[in-house]
Amino acid sequence: MNTAAGMKVVTTRKEIQAIATKLKKEGKSIGFVPTMGFLHEGHLALAERARKENDFVFMSIFVNPLQFGPNEDFERYPRDAEGDRKKAETAGVDVLFIPTSEEMYPHPLSVQMKVTKRTDVLCGRKRPGHFDGVAAVLTKLFHLIQPDRAYFGLKDAQQVAVVEGLVRDYDFPVEIVPVGIVREKDGLAKSSRNVYLSEAERKEAPELYKSLQIANKAVEEGERNPEKIISIAKQHLKTHTNGKIDYVELYSYPELQPVAELRGRSILAIAVQFEKARLIDNIIFEI
Amino acid sequence: MNTAAGMKVVTTRKEIQAIATKLKKEGKSIGFVPTMGFLHEGHLALAERARKENDFVFMSIFVNPLQFGPNEDFERYPRDAEGDRKKAETAGVDVLFIPTSEEMYPHPLSVQMKVTKRTDVLCGRKRPGHFDGVAAVLTKLFHLIQPDRAYFGLKDAQQVAVVEGLVRDYDFPVEIVPVGIVREKDGLAKSSRNVYLSEAERKEAPELYKSLQIANKAVEEGERNPEKIISIAKQHLKTHTNGKIDYVELYSYPELQPVAELRGRSILAIAVQFEKARLIDNIIFEI
Repeated sequence: MNTAAGMKVVTTRKEIQAIATKLKKEGKSIGFVPTMGFLHEGHLALAERARKENDFVFMSIFVNPLQFGPNEDFERYPRDAEGDRKKAETAGVDVLFIPTSEEMYPHPLSVQMKVTKRTDVLCGRKRPGHFDGVAAVLTKLFHLIQPDRAYFGLKDAQQVAVVEGLVRDYDFPVEIVPVGIVREKDGLAKSSRNVYLSEAERKEAPELYKSLQIANKAVEEGERNPEKIISIAKQHLKTHTNGKIDYVELYSYPELQPVAELRGRSILAIAVQFEKARLIDNIIFEI
Repeated sequence: MNTAAGMKVVTTRKEIQAIATKLKKEGKSIGFVPTMGFLHEGHLALAERARKENDFVFMSIFVNPLQFGPNEDFERYPRDAEGDRKKAETAGVDVLFIPTSEEMYPHPLSVQMKVTKRTDVLCGRKRPGHFDGVAAVLTKLFHLIQPDRAYFGLKDAQQVAVVEGLVRDYDFPVEIVPVGIVREKDGLAKSSRNVYLSEAERKEAPELYKSLQIANKAVEEGERNPEKIISIAKQHLKTHTNGKIDYVELYSYPELQPVAELRGRSILAIAVQFEKARLIDNIIFEI
């Protein structure tokens, strides 16, 4: 690890915890990148950031069944174990943790985690229980890997907000590091689900980011009314894509509370449903 | 710490976590004794055991409001900060953590913990939410203190069972060490609540333990029928105390499931309500 010896691949909780515990006892710092695999440049940017700030970089690849609803895409979530290993190693990951569902959840949980704030808006509103599953798996992973810092992409800004709440409320000895969205050249936010877009949809997809940029311009020019900013983005999406607008919402960040007027940090977040892919994107305003 | 310098008393989360993190980086082991204070020999036995098995001993004193129901004795739970400090220091505690409720819970939790197994029997049945509060505060304390081992008295055997479930399910890097019940010379299990007993009740109180001993004798002589064992203990309590029997129950341990016949590990647990104190006691059978 952290040497020419190459990346170590670990599949059991016992082994990953033993490796992490040993490193911590030696005073080494651990940066952790939790993922569901099918790695793209967004994930790799997290690993590269972790590489710069820690002695060792751990990455997990685990498609967590607890965070998928019964009608969601758990079974067909894209997977590419072999490609992921190569990408992770190239990005400087020292330890890759790839457990099975049975390894992570050998029996039903005797304690449930229930996220009660920051969840009833944006994607959380239509995914009841989703963030409960996220909180449970991250609690386990944080205990197994004992990171000093954990890296999360701001593409799922609601997830970052929920995780910051979890870590703050339960005093996890870990710093959450939010990392900016990585985009294709045409502006489309990188996502494992982009592979589901048809050719025509792929051409429209950058309009999500454009709608955010147009709204951002209005804010830069002085607009502070949330309704108007939402309307600007929505209008652009309506006229430039054939996808179904799932939501265009604006909240304080990370509290995710409605605001009467833009002030401090806030987020404009959008979701558009295409035929086989639901795309999300967002921009954070700092005023 | 661990020197002649004496015991350090800490009141903030930030400071206790910094101390623990520093020790962990130096490769030191930490033994942790969580308490609600009003220390007696039961607690001190936990600290002494921790002293033997770890480089440093941390103790917390925190009457956790989350684990008390609205009609329970949170306000009148006995407190003795000054006496506790002296006892903790004498028992070899290196770091004593005494936070206020505001320090532990500066804002409402955004993630709730809900214990769904091992709770609907014994004391848990009549204390809805009690173990949710226990799980929440221990999760926080484990993150703040990062112990290698945490020590719990078997007097609250259900609590030990719930905590073992929590630690197992969420892979906390901590070993739970259950420690046997410490008793007065006449057999009464040590408890902070014993001070509430009237003189007459105090004389009857050892009959709880006697009822367990009589049941144990029956088991040693071959009795394997849970109903009969329960009945033996209950009969003794009925005829030897004026307290109201709250429960006499027998389950597998630590699963706390009903059993048709004694086999493996099981627990016989009793609770008796006196005027101002509810006493509990138990015995674990290994067959």
